[in-house]
Amino acid sequence: MLDLACRIGHCLVLSRRVVSRFSDLTREEVVDLWTTAHTIAPVLEKQFNGKSLTLAIQDGAQAGQTVPHVHVHIIPRIRGDFERNDEVYEALDKEGAGKRFDDEDRKARTPEEMKAEADVLRPLFQSTSLTIPEDEA
Amino acid sequence: MLDLACRIGHCLVLSRRVVSRFSDLTREEVVDLWTTAHTIAPVLEKQFNGKSLTLAIQDGAQAGQTVPHVHVHIIPRIRGDFERNDEVYEALDKEGAGKRFDDEDRKARTPEEMKAEADVLRPLFQSTSLTIPEDEA
Repeated sequence: MLDLACRIGHCLVLSRRVVSRFSDLTREEVVDLWTTAHTIAPVLEKQFNGKSLTLAIQDGAQAGQTVPHVHVHIIPRIRGDFERNDEVYEALDKEGAGKRFDDEDRKARTPEEMKAEADVLRPLFQSTSLTIPEDEA
Repeated sequence: MLDLACRIGHCLVLSRRVVSRFSDLTREEVVDLWTTAHTIAPVLEKQFNGKSLTLAIQDGAQAGQTVPHVHVHIIPRIRGDFERNDEVYEALDKEGAGKRFDDEDRKARTPEEMKAEADVLRPLFQSTSLTIPEDEA
């Protein structure tokens, strides 16, 4: 779960192998990346009371990518969460620039807070093929 | 290739089965959708002189989806193609509203023009597992 998230529940799914472009992935890695996103997405949507999801890859610098490691943004959406629907992407760009979107004064969460969040999320994936390892929580 | 494209080369990859949400797809359909996008994307980027790609699913109405049939937007990007990077998504929303983005006076392409475009693109996919059928060109 992102600490620099543009919305609560905003999550990234990364390829295990560090490559910058979607086309750098093998077919097997594409399958792994997107079947993982497919498993995670509805759980996040439900948990964070979303009604829709934005799923996006900013594939290269000219598309707004700031970290050269392929990743899928999963963002639970509710009606009116942004004044204009596509402001979600402005928020993504601000996140890439290291800025916080929704509260300039918000402090970074502590490791304890992040562990507590992982403890809430872990059971939600027990019925799936995914697990959140204890040592990565 | 989209006639209401927000940028030249803007393409949609649709699931064969008509369902509205990404989570409605089976695992096999997710694999089919995204391995197809993975095959198409670099070919479009090269053909349309892109330097990056935007890949996105607007998964549900609150995420800007206007047609309830799962589809991946693939948009070749070049530096400065939009004044602000994320204007690409405003363009997507305008497209959804049936508006043309880059030229209000642009006329819809004729079937002949679309066939000519398909004729250019078809050979580009001959080295892939994909084909553009003649009867759908």
